[in-house]
Amino acid sequence: MPPPARRPTFAGWLAETNDVTQIFLAAGRIPDLINMAGGLPDPATWPVADLSALAARAIADHPGEALAYAPIEGLTGLRDLIAARFSSPGLHLTRDNVLITSGGMQALDLIGKVLLDQGGLVAAQSPAYLGALDAWKPRYPRYRPMCLEAGDFDPALALRDAQFAYTVPNFSNPTGRLVGLGERRALVAAAEATGTWLIEDDPYGTLYYDGAPLPRMLSLSAGGAAVYDGPVVYLGTLSKELAPGFRIGWVVAAPDMIQALISAKQGSDMSSSGLSQRIAHEAFAMGLTERILPDVLALYRARRDALGAAMARHLGDLFDWEIPAGGMFVWATARDAALDTDRLLREALAHGVCITPSSVFDPEGRNRRSIRINFTLNAPDKLDEGVRRLAEATRTTLARAA
Amino acid sequence: MPPPARRPTFAGWLAETNDVTQIFLAAGRIPDLINMAGGLPDPATWPVADLSALAARAIADHPGEALAYAPIEGLTGLRDLIAARFSSPGLHLTRDNVLITSGGMQALDLIGKVLLDQGGLVAAQSPAYLGALDAWKPRYPRYRPMCLEAGDFDPALALRDAQFAYTVPNFSNPTGRLVGLGERRALVAAAEATGTWLIEDDPYGTLYYDGAPLPRMLSLSAGGAAVYDGPVVYLGTLSKELAPGFRIGWVVAAPDMIQALISAKQGSDMSSSGLSQRIAHEAFAMGLTERILPDVLALYRARRDALGAAMARHLGDLFDWEIPAGGMFVWATARDAALDTDRLLREALAHGVCITPSSVFDPEGRNRRSIRINFTLNAPDKLDEGVRRLAEATRTTLARAA
Repeated sequence: MPPPARRPTFAGWLAETNDVTQIFLAAGRIPDLINMAGGLPDPATWPVADLSALAARAIADHPGEALAYAPIEGLTGLRDLIAARFSSPGLHLTRDNVLITSGGMQALDLIGKVLLDQGGLVAAQSPAYLGALDAWKPRYPRYRPMCLEAGDFDPALALRDAQFAYTVPNFSNPTGRLVGLGERRALVAAAEATGTWLIEDDPYGTLYYDGAPLPRMLSLSAGGAAVYDGPVVYLGTLSKELAPGFRIGWVVAAPDMIQALISAKQGSDMSSSGLSQRIAHEAFAMGLTERILPDVLALYRARRDALGAAMARHLGDLFDWEIPAGGMFVWATARDAALDTDRLLREALAHGVCITPSSVFDPEGRNRRSIRINFTLNAPDKLDEGVRRLAEATRTTLARAA
Repeated sequence: MPPPARRPTFAGWLAETNDVTQIFLAAGRIPDLINMAGGLPDPATWPVADLSALAARAIADHPGEALAYAPIEGLTGLRDLIAARFSSPGLHLTRDNVLITSGGMQALDLIGKVLLDQGGLVAAQSPAYLGALDAWKPRYPRYRPMCLEAGDFDPALALRDAQFAYTVPNFSNPTGRLVGLGERRALVAAAEATGTWLIEDDPYGTLYYDGAPLPRMLSLSAGGAAVYDGPVVYLGTLSKELAPGFRIGWVVAAPDMIQALISAKQGSDMSSSGLSQRIAHEAFAMGLTERILPDVLALYRARRDALGAAMARHLGDLFDWEIPAGGMFVWATARDAALDTDRLLREALAHGVCITPSSVFDPEGRNRRSIRINFTLNAPDKLDEGVRRLAEATRTTLARAA
């Protein structure tokens, strides 16, 4: 037999993936590991019996919607419900403002496809959600980091000539930071002045543990037009409001953006699951997401507080952090600049705990001084033990660096 | 108020979409239209009661799989079932050979992401499936058309230096052609000699109406290795075997290809629906797809024959065609070279029937002499009336061209 022929090379972006994902996958096999790395909901929050009944009815009562190819843009009834849900005085939305996506992640992929040719410029809140960076890698973007909280941050300068600006205003991933009302207004004004699209990625918008939600940038850019036609591209998801397994998200945006995204979705997965869309429709219509929300908030608020107490107990001399008013994460920055959190991750796994190092939230992988800690998945005693292990791992890592 | 700022331009590929999709969408609103354009199954083939019960049980009995984020690569149990299903003596597949996708379309998108940088070369069976062309547009490929049935077709020459070769061996979309065993062997040999990946897209592999299925190229390239590591990338889908609304497909390929596709899927939709995957698992495990297949075959065989009879009755002087041995489509080529089938589509809609013109299956849109007619969606009387209208529309179009 001749030697096997050489295979074509894979696309260039595949060589740029870091190995943290592989480390996380391998971590899944470590016994007794306390996973504080991901952004996972607690399965105890899922209304299993309700959802089982909804799924059965979705197919039995609506086979023509649940089992067929759905329209690319999504089922009409679900789009109407989303339009109604996000409309407000001054913000007039119709189904033409709504695209149903296969989870929030697909919206990021589609945005990259319609707005980024190779080398396109993205203004991105820094540090930035890892999943967004992953989604856009095959488009080879350039990044302009936006530090919204910096005193000299100039939104119009930041957005100028960018294809779009990417933000997570409610409890930013990874920092947990709530972008204030003044910053929101300034971003919207800059988007309107420059024409740059402004992505408002909002998976945590219902997870406010203290105080009332701030207005969405989508509402702030309303302007009262008969059909919304502003620069904000709002992304929502069922994953945090109900359960991730349905893979249902939505985009609310100007009709020309929705049309472009539909063209991209057609060649991406043709349509999202009709079954999942019917279940989402029924869950919204019967108020299931609102019904479970108080228990979800009580559970996660208590865990956030438990994580804060554990960090104060074990990490006070090693890290600085702020307790977030919502979301799923605490962001902690090492006091000692000698700490490399990529190395800390490896040591943490050896100690039986997993966190996410800051390098993965930096398009260039250079930020190695912070970590992201999740508090929604584990009970308070596990959070305490996880943080205790993390403190040990941090001391070991620092001792090795010295 | 200042004039609205100019928005960033959309990515270049969006300007290349033809308007046939819009025409089809508008066609959906024409009353009494007979739709022979799409590749849709007859909803009567769906086992609604079984699927309703399966969906309820999937959530009630397996909430941790149905409602959570699934692993990117898919649920382990479903991957094992697919590996077992496609294994044969000499073809050893494990879960490492299998990726679950969100419908067959997503597999095409992921293949583009991992194999095509801008300008990458694709050797594609010609005419080519419209959905594949759509999926790869954002990657700006070059195409080398492959006419497998041409007497002088040289597979090794066709595959040389291409990133991959794209084929639909079972009842090719759009032509309905069955790629013969000799051609399959030659393609596999060429892929092994050149190293080029060979995509075997197989949505219609169970829809054989006459005679026994030919061996898959995947099997022909087996080679007996402990774990399959050959150049064939096999794509399957639940859409034609059970129902499209679940959006479940699969890729069977060498482990390094599966790994690359997993990286691309991570940034595309994170994972496919856990609920849909559990339903697929149960449907395969209980033999539901095999149970409904005889009725599906009987129904579609009768419709294929009805369409053939209707075409002989109404179109014999206008088109040439061959009756396919399976699949969903008849491909017909105008006898008169003056017929422009893009124009025919518009005239056909005015006559109350919809077919697909050949231009959409040509990356350069130049082939305008053929049409694709679907026979699975409509009952025999509708097929006859649709073809009668099509004959009228053809005569009108030819009279105008003269």
